[in-house]
Amino acid sequence: MKFSFKNDYSEGCHPRILQALLESNLAQQNGYGLDDYCLEAERLIQEKVNNPKAKVYFVSGGTQANLTVISAFLRPHESVVSAETGHIFTNETGAIEATGHKVHALETETGKITPAQIQIVLDAHRNIPHQVKQKLVYISNSTELGTIYSKNELQNLSGICRVNKLFLFMDGARLSQALAAETNDLALEDIAQLTDAFYWGGTKNGALIGEAIVINNIELQEEFGFHLKQKGALLAKGRLLGIQFKELLRDDLYLNLGKHANEQAMKIKNAFTENGFQMLTETFTNQIFPILKNSEIEKLAENFDFYVWKKIDEESSAIRVITSWATAEEVVDVFIQKIKSLK
Amino acid sequence: MKFSFKNDYSEGCHPRILQALLESNLAQQNGYGLDDYCLEAERLIQEKVNNPKAKVYFVSGGTQANLTVISAFLRPHESVVSAETGHIFTNETGAIEATGHKVHALETETGKITPAQIQIVLDAHRNIPHQVKQKLVYISNSTELGTIYSKNELQNLSGICRVNKLFLFMDGARLSQALAAETNDLALEDIAQLTDAFYWGGTKNGALIGEAIVINNIELQEEFGFHLKQKGALLAKGRLLGIQFKELLRDDLYLNLGKHANEQAMKIKNAFTENGFQMLTETFTNQIFPILKNSEIEKLAENFDFYVWKKIDEESSAIRVITSWATAEEVVDVFIQKIKSLK
Amino acid sequence: MKFSFKNDYSEGCHPRILQALLESNLAQQNGYGLDDYCLEAERLIQEKVNNPKAKVYFVSGGTQANLTVISAFLRPHESVVSAETGHIFTNETGAIEATGHKVHALETETGKITPAQIQIVLDAHRNIPHQVKQKLVYISNSTELGTIYSKNELQNLSGICRVNKLFLFMDGARLSQALAAETNDLALEDIAQLTDAFYWGGTKNGALIGEAIVINNIELQEEFGFHLKQKGALLAKGRLLGIQFKELLRDDLYLNLGKHANEQAMKIKNAFTENGFQMLTETFTNQIFPILKNSEIEKLAENFDFYVWKKIDEESSAIRVITSWATAEEVVDVFIQKIKSLK
Amino acid sequence: MKFSFKNDYSEGCHPRILQALLESNLAQQNGYGLDDYCLEAERLIQEKVNNPKAKVYFVSGGTQANLTVISAFLRPHESVVSAETGHIFTNETGAIEATGHKVHALETETGKITPAQIQIVLDAHRNIPHQVKQKLVYISNSTELGTIYSKNELQNLSGICRVNKLFLFMDGARLSQALAAETNDLALEDIAQLTDAFYWGGTKNGALIGEAIVINNIELQEEFGFHLKQKGALLAKGRLLGIQFKELLRDDLYLNLGKHANEQAMKIKNAFTENGFQMLTETFTNQIFPILKNSEIEKLAENFDFYVWKKIDEESSAIRVITSWATAEEVVDVFIQKIKSLK
Repeated sequence: MKFSFKNDYSEGCHPRILQALLESNLAQQNGYGLDDYCLEAERLIQEKVNNPKAKVYFVSGGTQANLTVISAFLRPHESVVSAETGHIFTNETGAIEATGHKVHALETETGKITPAQIQIVLDAHRNIPHQVKQKLVYISNSTELGTIYSKNELQNLSGICRVNKLFLFMDGARLSQALAAETNDLALEDIAQLTDAFYWGGTKNGALIGEAIVINNIELQEEFGFHLKQKGALLAKGRLLGIQFKELLRDDLYLNLGKHANEQAMKIKNAFTENGFQMLTETFTNQIFPILKNSEIEKLAENFDFYVWKKIDEESSAIRVITSWATAEEVVDVFIQKIKSLK
Repeated sequence: MKFSFKNDYSEGCHPRILQALLESNLAQQNGYGLDDYCLEAERLIQEKVNNPKAKVYFVSGGTQANLTVISAFLRPHESVVSAETGHIFTNETGAIEATGHKVHALETETGKITPAQIQIVLDAHRNIPHQVKQKLVYISNSTELGTIYSKNELQNLSGICRVNKLFLFMDGARLSQALAAETNDLALEDIAQLTDAFYWGGTKNGALIGEAIVINNIELQEEFGFHLKQKGALLAKGRLLGIQFKELLRDDLYLNLGKHANEQAMKIKNAFTENGFQMLTETFTNQIFPILKNSEIEKLAENFDFYVWKKIDEESSAIRVITSWATAEEVVDVFIQKIKSLK
Repeated sequence: MKFSFKNDYSEGCHPRILQALLESNLAQQNGYGLDDYCLEAERLIQEKVNNPKAKVYFVSGGTQANLTVISAFLRPHESVVSAETGHIFTNETGAIEATGHKVHALETETGKITPAQIQIVLDAHRNIPHQVKQKLVYISNSTELGTIYSKNELQNLSGICRVNKLFLFMDGARLSQALAAETNDLALEDIAQLTDAFYWGGTKNGALIGEAIVINNIELQEEFGFHLKQKGALLAKGRLLGIQFKELLRDDLYLNLGKHANEQAMKIKNAFTENGFQMLTETFTNQIFPILKNSEIEKLAENFDFYVWKKIDEESSAIRVITSWATAEEVVDVFIQKIKSLK
Repeated sequence: MKFSFKNDYSEGCHPRILQALLESNLAQQNGYGLDDYCLEAERLIQEKVNNPKAKVYFVSGGTQANLTVISAFLRPHESVVSAETGHIFTNETGAIEATGHKVHALETETGKITPAQIQIVLDAHRNIPHQVKQKLVYISNSTELGTIYSKNELQNLSGICRVNKLFLFMDGARLSQALAAETNDLALEDIAQLTDAFYWGGTKNGALIGEAIVINNIELQEEFGFHLKQKGALLAKGRLLGIQFKELLRDDLYLNLGKHANEQAMKIKNAFTENGFQMLTETFTNQIFPILKNSEIEKLAENFDFYVWKKIDEESSAIRVITSWATAEEVVDVFIQKIKSLK
């Protein structure tokens, strides 16, 4: 069977998580996130983000996190600004619109958006009340293209949001990988200060399932539980999520897993570049997008699975290679040999 | 610490499920329910319900199952008929209305509804187009009061639904307990033939999380995946759900767990009745509702946790006692001693 | 052709309104309610309600007024309390639920609700966050059964709403008739002080179309225009509504029309009671509900149109007779002769 | 006071309409579009479109027509394709998204979209079920930029829609002006054959208010009344709309009004072009977009009102000039003198 570089959720979970589930299995606990594990995981996250007033809510997936947060924060006439590559815009089957809100899409090369782009959207919507009112900016970090925001970039985004009373919300499905990137200069504490809310992904970083929604803005915490329940996001056995995040946070397991994933990707990236391949966009996280000739793609695909991401011209395309916490070094070595053999 | 009879999701999961997770952990699989385990679990359910054309979709919770199914099946002007005690009417924070649909509530003593009640709702909504059009009947089995539908009752409900082109949907959060009840005469196959869809609960019967939506009506299967994704119900690591249901179905584990839960409840029920206590409603599943004097409730509460369900008069209330797959016989024995000591 | 007592919108409009349309016809005006007539009509209403800070928005119909107001005021997890006979609950095709909100229905004899009934709903929804949060009380005045609220009753409703931070919203489709009732002790000024918002009907009181939404609570005025536009309620030629309300307010035309309608109804009511007929509910506005034998109904229906409202027993039903600003005294006299002839 | 070329709904209505309202005023009629006038107007439209099976529904405004039609036609996971300039995308405060549906926007120079553009959207949404499913194409005729579709263009759009099972819906807020354009080759009958539904505007062509929704596709007619009522679009005094459309259709009044508006616009256009001004886009209906220097705009604005539509560069902008059924030739002559004086 081929090894898959298609995504970072192909395996189960990190063994420490299974161990934690085993150990806690028969302890009776309250339901709906009021168990000891969720409370402890919340406390650990409050520490990590250095904000004892942050509220943490655990849900089972990213689309659910996005739609619950955004629909809870907005009033009916308010809209969202996102990159065109933003997960909510392209890959969530209109989940945000299904809760009643328009999403404005910004074209980008890198999956990252800028204050100037946001300003253009704001300026184009001055015909009150005939146009929607922008109220929330959605960013992903790392982005759907594997890039990350610098501290300076996030400060600038936060700045334009505060001036215009826009909420800033970060989709952190791959936040751990962003934090673990060699080029990263953003601390969790920065993110907590600069955003109104973010979610921190477990599914793509070694958990069985689970994402932690962190709401930093106290006003937005109010009555958030109602929204979770209404959208079907409040798990009866919330313990399943609390146990996992508690474990991911212990000894910075999340960071080590992110680092491992990134390192494997970087090794592969280097193999591509050393052999003369271009990248669609430069990344330092666990997603890379090398551009190959179609014949080369076919050869690689004999032994490995990955997505062909974007047609570049008649003869070549960018592919997407994703590594994960579970990608073995041995597999990466074999892949690199294969890359070398292409030339 | 007190032992809790508050619900059937206080513990983790049945050990066989943890074992299955361990064994499958590092196998690479497709995401989004396209993994081998989900496919196999679907096949096993098709066998159980004796309908190879049934489609099965796994989701993480009951509210999510209900809102995804109902919003997928209805057009905007269509409504739902439910018991007033129905979970969607009372305990899901308006999840169905949040997708745009009215829920009509029928008063019941037992949590079960009848064709005559449905007919009254239909007759009261003839002022077309000024009133909503009823399109789906929602029932729970076992109900929120622990009662179950007989085969004859379900046939009658199915009959009025077909005559009036209403979909019949069963919330089976505690379906295994219903099937395992000593008084049950409904087979899974009957349910598949008589309903358009149902969901089969894992969370309350030994799974970590997970419910299986089974759509029997072929027309309603079409494009259902879009709705799952849009509502945040499509898990990237769907394997987590497939592995669990595969295990629950192997050797009829689901039924044994339901039977265990019911038996413990029946022992407790008998202890109550033998000691002269009345029941709010007669049940043969894992929920019982004995009526006690307030002072007796206080005494029981010294050592056990449970919900006070309903005030009967100034001096007495019905409590709700729920047992589960994990309720140890020893604990039940202690509880029974305590019950005896009340008199 | 039969004369119709089926409703109060069977004719066009009061001649003074057509005259006002004629006179203003070719004046160029701004669109979307920013014309001179709307601004002047708003000013006149502010005077009438003695609240210069009230904001007034004109829309084309009652369902539209209700759904726009309610969806603008509520957040997604919030619900509405209404009489079971409330127009939003029974006769608007689920318009409120279609915007995402549950409506709790209270059973009444008279169409009027009480603080005690509201309290029961509040008490039944304490299981946070598993249940919706009540946030708005909807009342009709006059009600769908022709009854009216006294000042004392409205003060009490307002009281419980303020204690529980519920908005109080009055559907005034037939507010003019309520104000014109001989038993009325509520002034427009009282209504403005005791409710957060109300709408004042034109359609059923001599306008071609049009309802005036009056928002008294300053916080709820904010950004209301967006909601109007989003729901399709903002007319390009808003002037059509402004001109009509300006005319209805001039010399208290609205009150005279309401009074005329009520007087015709009272004459008919007296004819029924003097001839020994019972009423379903006692009313002093333009809707009456006499109870007749089926054979008597048939006889009346030979010459007049009206709705059979409610079956009383096998032999008799209540009918609904509605008079309007346009009901000619001569027609009423003929109808009364017919009533007398029944005995 | 300045004369306004800002829009085509600045005045009341054509005198014949007021006359028709006067003459019908006291006739008693059924409510909710079941009056004789609506029925007769429907029959006249069926004749005009040569489709006796077309169903016609009258509503008070364009946003209401759009949101009611689109939300009635689509299921929750389905989306709309529109020009970026489409009224639903830019100027209806997210009305379509508020009913739960994404709108894909296509960039255009002319406000008109092509099959090739639709194909690109379809091709970019093949990741089932992670992306919305396109189901309806929305076009405006005349467009928001005053351009019109040719018969051939509409046939091609209809073709791609039928191949891909997309509904084709035309916003005809200014359909009469399109039909009256000198360059038009589309008959109403063609439109009825090539679209699934369209709405025909009255508000912008001499009515007080009112748009006629015409549903040609029989399957989409089913239960449409429920949607009208639910969205607040079903007027109690539907007669107001029926009377107006009956009059607009009599002796082709609608076409004469459209022709008059277009002719005034063409005279002004010619004056601009003869004096060396460029147009933003070439139009033959009642909207023109000449490009002027800022100083010239200031001069024109001394005596006339119009919108500055689009900045071209630091020194010049396109303005929008709209004429209507009510634009007097004398005013146009004065405006033309002013244009000539600019050079």
